[in-house]
Amino acid sequence: MTISWRDRPVGIVGLGLIGGSLGLDLRQRGIDVRALVHRPSTAERARQRGLADQVDTDPAVLQPCGLVVLALPLDQLLEPPAALVAALPAGAVLTDVGSVKAPVLERWRQGPWRFVASHPMAGTAQAGVEAGVAGLFAGRPWVATPAADTDPSALQQVRELAELVGARWLCCDANQHDRAVALISHMPVLVSAALLEAADVEADGATAQLARQLASSGFADTSRIGGGNPALGTLMARHNRDAVLAALGRYRQHIEALEQLVQQQRWGELEQRLSRCQQLRPEFLPPATAMEPPGPPAADGRR
Amino acid sequence: MTISWRDRPVGIVGLGLIGGSLGLDLRQRGIDVRALVHRPSTAERARQRGLADQVDTDPAVLQPCGLVVLALPLDQLLEPPAALVAALPAGAVLTDVGSVKAPVLERWRQGPWRFVASHPMAGTAQAGVEAGVAGLFAGRPWVATPAADTDPSALQQVRELAELVGARWLCCDANQHDRAVALISHMPVLVSAALLEAADVEADGATAQLARQLASSGFADTSRIGGGNPALGTLMARHNRDAVLAALGRYRQHIEALEQLVQQQRWGELEQRLSRCQQLRPEFLPPATAMEPPGPPAADGRR
Repeated sequence: MTISWRDRPVGIVGLGLIGGSLGLDLRQRGIDVRALVHRPSTAERARQRGLADQVDTDPAVLQPCGLVVLALPLDQLLEPPAALVAALPAGAVLTDVGSVKAPVLERWRQGPWRFVASHPMAGTAQAGVEAGVAGLFAGRPWVATPAADTDPSALQQVRELAELVGARWLCCDANQHDRAVALISHMPVLVSAALLEAADVEADGATAQLARQLASSGFADTSRIGGGNPALGTLMARHNRDAVLAALGRYRQHIEALEQLVQQQRWGELEQRLSRCQQLRPEFLPPATAMEPPGPPAADGRR
Repeated sequence: MTISWRDRPVGIVGLGLIGGSLGLDLRQRGIDVRALVHRPSTAERARQRGLADQVDTDPAVLQPCGLVVLALPLDQLLEPPAALVAALPAGAVLTDVGSVKAPVLERWRQGPWRFVASHPMAGTAQAGVEAGVAGLFAGRPWVATPAADTDPSALQQVRELAELVGARWLCCDANQHDRAVALISHMPVLVSAALLEAADVEADGATAQLARQLASSGFADTSRIGGGNPALGTLMARHNRDAVLAALGRYRQHIEALEQLVQQQRWGELEQRLSRCQQLRPEFLPPATAMEPPGPPAADGRR
């Protein structure tokens, strides 16, 4: 009889939105969760919230684990503390949650562990030890980007973990993942941020005030990700720079073409392009799910 | 004793989202509503839905009205049918609902009526005779843009109408209104549409497919208004062209500046600008209201 990964504790490094939510979901399903955090105050609060069975600031807490999830921000995934690297149990299956995959895979593929690069795509409006909520991954994609030397049984274990918490499992090439998320996630943050900057007119105080009074749900939606976590937006641009620049270049061509249609009063063509956009959008909408995460959907509490 | 505008029937021309919603709200408050529509089939359906007390395709239906609301699309407001213009009751207070104010004011300020240019800012994801819902205007801005020759008592009557259905009344200059809505409504439609176009990569079929699979609520929000009604987006750009071009010019400067920071790897500055965006966004959010419109919030039914 094979011993399942479920029969040993699962380790989580970091108990922010992703790590904390994963801890709650795994514990609900009877998994013994051991978590490593940086600060004693975080450990204390995580224990109060029940995010893991054991929480410690000593990397030794990970020793009994057969599967460890690095739920750290991108910069720490790419330059991990030496003490953490040294404490990872030899032979363990190791995965991460970073939103850029090629550099993370490059950093971790070699080592005394079996690494699977992965990316659970779940909401990130909240952060920190208070952010974790049960059910965050339900119905959301969890993308793995295996390399030629990725251990198939390690890949299978991470898949089982993802599916245990209700995520939709997908596999693709790391560079392809990074290009796709640049288009639908990283570049749009800058598009949305530029909108907020442009709306912040200062030359004419009365218009600035009026724009604030008249902005409605359309502006709120379009500006939501541009008004999100600045550190996260910067990390995405920094560590997925080539794909983000390529996506921005594409974007600029399209906004300039639309501007030209307005400039040249080519209204029929403008309406045709907007009709195409109307047809296109449903192709990009996530499948409706009855299992929306129970936490607040956006930092501002609005839909 | 003064006879109030409420003591005579109120006319509504057009029973789409705005006209139909207004009819429902006014009738609920005991006002006698007379509506003019173009097609007999629309009239029939509007009667079934109870959008007005009398609905007709004959402009004579407006004759007893002391206050008439032109709830027509921008192009029809700017080039109204001669039969409609001829049938408007002499001396009536007349207002409109167009999302661009300077050209509408210019078209209607002279005439045998007392015109008040106005713009109720309420959701527009739905259209047509099925779209009207009660409560649409509750808590939303209703902006008037009076000119020097606008009749003060007419302005007051339109204000009372707007406040009767729960809207927040605002007054400003027509050009200032048009610049503000270009920034927070009309230009963002093109920004959002360009995002959909850019995400629709065709050169690499696998990335195109993956982008569709991975797009989540952030992309759905940012692309919502770009995937909206193409005719409406075109009308806004067409009839508010100068202000939309000025806003697009501003926008382009900002997106290019952000692109340059990524290109030049100036991560500290990028994070500072994103922090400013994070601070800025709450200034543009509409005040929370317990009276959200009861209709579907977006064409796709998602938040």
